[in-house]
Amino acid sequence: MQQAEIGLIGLAVMGSNLALNIAEKGNRIAVFNRSPDKTRTFYAEAGALQDRIVPCESLEAFVAAIRPPRPVIIMVKAGDPVDELIATLRNYLSEGDIIIDAGNANFRDTIARFKGLEGSGLTFIGMGVSGGEEGARHGPSIMVGGTEESWKRVEPVLTSIAAKYKDDPCVAWLGENGAGHFVKTIHNGIEYADMQMIAEIYGLLRDGLGYSAKACSEVFSLWNTRRLNSYLIEISETVLAATDPVTGQAMVDVIVDKAGQKGTGKWSAIEALNLGIPATAIEAAVAARSLSSFKTKRMDAEAILGLPGTGRIAGDADAFVADLELALLAGKIGAYAQGFAVMAEASREFGWSLPMPTIARIWRAGCIIRSQFLDEITSAFTAMPDADNLIVTPAFAAMVQETDGALRRVVASAALAGLPVPALASALAYFDTYRRGRGTANLIQAQRDFFGAHGFDRIDGLDKHHGPWGSGLADF
Amino acid sequence: MQQAEIGLIGLAVMGSNLALNIAEKGNRIAVFNRSPDKTRTFYAEAGALQDRIVPCESLEAFVAAIRPPRPVIIMVKAGDPVDELIATLRNYLSEGDIIIDAGNANFRDTIARFKGLEGSGLTFIGMGVSGGEEGARHGPSIMVGGTEESWKRVEPVLTSIAAKYKDDPCVAWLGENGAGHFVKTIHNGIEYADMQMIAEIYGLLRDGLGYSAKACSEVFSLWNTRRLNSYLIEISETVLAATDPVTGQAMVDVIVDKAGQKGTGKWSAIEALNLGIPATAIEAAVAARSLSSFKTKRMDAEAILGLPGTGRIAGDADAFVADLELALLAGKIGAYAQGFAVMAEASREFGWSLPMPTIARIWRAGCIIRSQFLDEITSAFTAMPDADNLIVTPAFAAMVQETDGALRRVVASAALAGLPVPALASALAYFDTYRRGRGTANLIQAQRDFFGAHGFDRIDGLDKHHGPWGSGLADF
Repeated sequence: MQQAEIGLIGLAVMGSNLALNIAEKGNRIAVFNRSPDKTRTFYAEAGALQDRIVPCESLEAFVAAIRPPRPVIIMVKAGDPVDELIATLRNYLSEGDIIIDAGNANFRDTIARFKGLEGSGLTFIGMGVSGGEEGARHGPSIMVGGTEESWKRVEPVLTSIAAKYKDDPCVAWLGENGAGHFVKTIHNGIEYADMQMIAEIYGLLRDGLGYSAKACSEVFSLWNTRRLNSYLIEISETVLAATDPVTGQAMVDVIVDKAGQKGTGKWSAIEALNLGIPATAIEAAVAARSLSSFKTKRMDAEAILGLPGTGRIAGDADAFVADLELALLAGKIGAYAQGFAVMAEASREFGWSLPMPTIARIWRAGCIIRSQFLDEITSAFTAMPDADNLIVTPAFAAMVQETDGALRRVVASAALAGLPVPALASALAYFDTYRRGRGTANLIQAQRDFFGAHGFDRIDGLDKHHGPWGSGLADF
Repeated sequence: MQQAEIGLIGLAVMGSNLALNIAEKGNRIAVFNRSPDKTRTFYAEAGALQDRIVPCESLEAFVAAIRPPRPVIIMVKAGDPVDELIATLRNYLSEGDIIIDAGNANFRDTIARFKGLEGSGLTFIGMGVSGGEEGARHGPSIMVGGTEESWKRVEPVLTSIAAKYKDDPCVAWLGENGAGHFVKTIHNGIEYADMQMIAEIYGLLRDGLGYSAKACSEVFSLWNTRRLNSYLIEISETVLAATDPVTGQAMVDVIVDKAGQKGTGKWSAIEALNLGIPATAIEAAVAARSLSSFKTKRMDAEAILGLPGTGRIAGDADAFVADLELALLAGKIGAYAQGFAVMAEASREFGWSLPMPTIARIWRAGCIIRSQFLDEITSAFTAMPDADNLIVTPAFAAMVQETDGALRRVVASAALAGLPVPALASALAYFDTYRRGRGTANLIQAQRDFFGAHGFDRIDGLDKHHGPWGSGLADF
């Protein structure tokens, strides 16, 4: 019997969909699940794909069914279950076999697992998969971290199942060990920022202009036909237009304004801090989700302090909505510029060679943040792969100059109205700080030298690093 | 010979000053330094304080000179040297003796060291000391973490050397293990935010109104006589008035605008993220320091993009300066509210019982952020120790209502002028989000349910947690 090209363990929704996708694209796959029932059900429901699926009820049979060196995708709950499964597999796999964790792991765990298998003869791939259930079934965006040799072994299968932007498969090898899971984490961090900015715009339409959910949906509907065309704008249009079957009201008006988070946004912000690269739009989005969860505290605070500002956006509504479209575009530029800058630094820090154009390229389809915008980022980084920052590439520099006036007006109007726009405001502050050669940290350095004798550099380069204030109060 | 009340190891500037302070306040102290020369020099220069100082040239002699149970302050470089010294001391100290780390340790290291000594018969105190060289010599703010029993042993000495606010000593026991070093870390994080907001105000005066350094100094000088009276405003006045001995220009105008950081601001932001409590003002300050260090990138970006916005603040300058004073007060309220909220959550998370009124009380003198403002925080938390947040205490709720209009106008004007105010803007967004019972996260929850089937709560409490959009694209 012809051996399988690849194996997969863990037939919950994600695993099943990924296995069906693999088989559907012409690859023979061996599958195993701890409870054989699930394997049987999965096989029974595989229909026409059955002839490319080898259902296995023991790990011996599973391993025997795969062509060496064996790539084994494990799709189990992140954390301990992954380590337990790896420990078990070490008893069954042989020299050169490849364990592929396709779950949402923290890249630091992936690095540890990669190291843990060194000398065992087995290799490890941390694979970020974005696009979830539907993506897994019909085409996800795939971010691969591992040795180049192990990547070569799985490249054909992964290329066949990945989402396609036009004809370009959204999969790439991004470097060793944790590179794939790191990039997936930053993808999610950017997703947090993107969603928060959309929510801020929604708040300005709803509370600042008094738009109904339906009217907000129509705004996003129009924007989705233009430069903001993206999956997130498309689903914003959809969910804002949806009606609650129970009450007949707009669905969003019945939903409690408490947002959950599963950690990748927080990881992104923490790693950006560790790397010393500002990711203030992601930080603002994580903070906004945390504050949203303090529902009772917010209601109490409103009762005590009252709602802030004028509450309404002054001036011409149509002109303001036109500004909002450009402001959201500007805000996105800030969030993506920060995310890519974090990845560039991580690439240096962790010895990867994260190819910025490639990352943008494989995010153009399959994943949540897929958009026309990412095609423009791909072009910008392809033309200038070593750009310090997205905003200094010619195309995006022009876009910043075109849009930041609208972003300024929106941030200013929101501030006066008392409508919070933390992520949009963080993008504006980022631009205004980043494009200013002479900032204000000279005062901070003077203060630090005064109280801490920390010293400073002089603009004339003279080797005289302390001010004429003698020894101040040193904070050590 | 009468035994010493306490011992100190490490006679660099900080250690020497702390030892002299201890002796000066009437306590007998034994001192030791790895190189005996330093010990001899220190003793020789101790003058009238010699009769209370026991210089020791061996650890045997040092330990013998201290009254059991022996409190031993170690003031050595943070990190490995601390662990090495602890390992050495285990061979000399006995049951009940107390090792006190007075350096700037990460509280997680302090927790590990505290645990590491369990069962050894020795106990460990992590002691945050703010105020540095001058503070150590004449009165620092002291934040103590350890067992209550070990605290009782050192309380008299520490109380005698601490800074005094009026007659109130700025020292307190804050809980077990890492409590003291955690509170010191957040103190420094707040210090970052405070300094950044002052730098933003300086930028608005300098670039927005065209004020000279001298004119800026006069503004801070006036403010220091009013509600913003504080050490940081006082030194801002001083350094802005200073003249460069080399060029005769204002000193600050000759200083390069690249700010350094030593990690406590970053630690604060990371721990706030770990705790899920927004500290956006600290995040903004850390980001601003990082961006300031990208001097070349900023100059390149200015050359490509040009300076942003109108560059100037429109309208009446005097009215704007009046707004700036209130805006800085409002910004401080936001930064301190966030810092205290982080400490309250950490207290729950790590099983401490951080007394908010006490923390504010011991920051009123000795440390860098000492201010009249902290006396008002002390009163607010004393009246309402379990307040959810500083801004809902009666005194600060009134202060927010009084000042946030000015903060709005300043953030709006800065946005239009293209002058970055990330920390001030983060405080405004914090107020405007926190005091709004109905936010915009309902849209985020709708999106997350659409693409991830994450579910949501309904405002009518019905047990129906998904929207009418069927299975969307799930990001897992």
